Amino acid sequence: MQTPRTTPSRLAKRAHYDAETIHPILDEALFCTVSFAVDGQPMAIPTALARQGDKVYIHGSVGSHFIREIEKGGPVCITVMLTDALVLAKSAFHHSVNYRSVVIFANAEKVTDETERMNVLALITDHLIPGRWDDLRPTTDSEMRKTTVLSFSLAEASAKVRTGPPSDDPEDEDLPTWAGIIPMQTVRLAPIPADNNTGTLLPDYLQ
Amino acid sequence: MQTPRTTPSRLAKRAHYDAETIHPILDEALFCTVSFAVDGQPMAIPTALARQGDKVYIHGSVGSHFIREIEKGGPVCITVMLTDALVLAKSAFHHSVNYRSVVIFANAEKVTDETERMNVLALITDHLIPGRWDDLRPTTDSEMRKTTVLSFSLAEASAKVRTGPPSDDPEDEDLPTWAGIIPMQTVRLAPIPADNNTGTLLPDYLQ
Repeated sequence: MQTPRTTPSRLAKRAHYDAETIHPILDEALFCTVSFAVDGQPMAIPTALARQGDKVYIHGSVGSHFIREIEKGGPVCITVMLTDALVLAKSAFHHSVNYRSVVIFANAEKVTDETERMNVLALITDHLIPGRWDDLRPTTDSEMRKTTVLSFSLAEASAKVRTGPPSDDPEDEDLPTWAGIIPMQTVRLAPIPADNNTGTLLPDYLQ
Repeated sequence: MQTPRTTPSRLAKRAHYDAETIHPILDEALFCTVSFAVDGQPMAIPTALARQGDKVYIHGSVGSHFIREIEKGGPVCITVMLTDALVLAKSAFHHSVNYRSVVIFANAEKVTDETERMNVLALITDHLIPGRWDDLRPTTDSEMRKTTVLSFSLAEASAKVRTGPPSDDPEDEDLPTWAGIIPMQTVRLAPIPADNNTGTLLPDYLQ
């Protein structure tokens, strides 16, 4: 939703407020940065996230300072950024990055229903490693007691996206400098078994 | 430096305060998230960074709300995170991530010396694309006037690092669940020339 604080001061044409743009970015990102302020002091923590419907979820230890602070419900700012390419123009000034970012202004809501809490942990686990949750032993009551689950509304979320080639000044167009993009990608390499993995074959969902 | 706000509440054994740990993480990261607060409202922006000595530098448009806000010199929190692997334990609870992150608490200092400003722009450009700066036409006075360069001290920086295999509970060790790590890597793909790149061969530094 476009509100004063989700309207960028620069390059407003790159801003988007529709779920069709915002949701896929959140679904591709594995990690976000959660920013909050304590007595005017900004603090930020990178953590895993997962989206379902019009909410994003994070989890953490009940003992963490970060979780205890934001579960109070004060304002937080959650950012994700996917970098698709470095953009090389003919001037340093027009160098850029092709990226897809989302900024969410929201307040944490603590998820308290035990079934919903478990569903969110499954959601986050399968977001990082699709198919993993059903292959794991059930989470115990003790583990659940040690875990806080928080949700955040996407009502005040916005995306910013840059795509395409460099945008050069007319007077630079004919310079003999190489211009174009260098695509970037985050890839997963072959899984490496741990020492306690005696004889278990790599499951299909990890192939 | 270890101070109350750089001491994590959880897993303090993963925290580091030495330049030998912190600098290489900052030098590998291309982007950071800069968090600041305006009247208690946290805001955060992903942006490019580069380190030299015991400072990190960012740049931006003189007209950007973000830059104008943090150049006032209020407290900011800069985070970077490199994700090296997903860590798959035999329980959901012990799933983790191998990561290297840095959190910097600092206040922006505006770089005003023109030579230093130019050097920082070269530093950031070559951090993203090594060798690029010397291949570009000189930056103009007009471009310099549109650009703000900010520095941040690393005096209050800390790193947090997790490495190695999953850490399972003793009673889970013999479960037949696959356990191990899935390494992750950010890679650069083959450069794609822009339409205005008529005939210029790919320079050596981009090979």
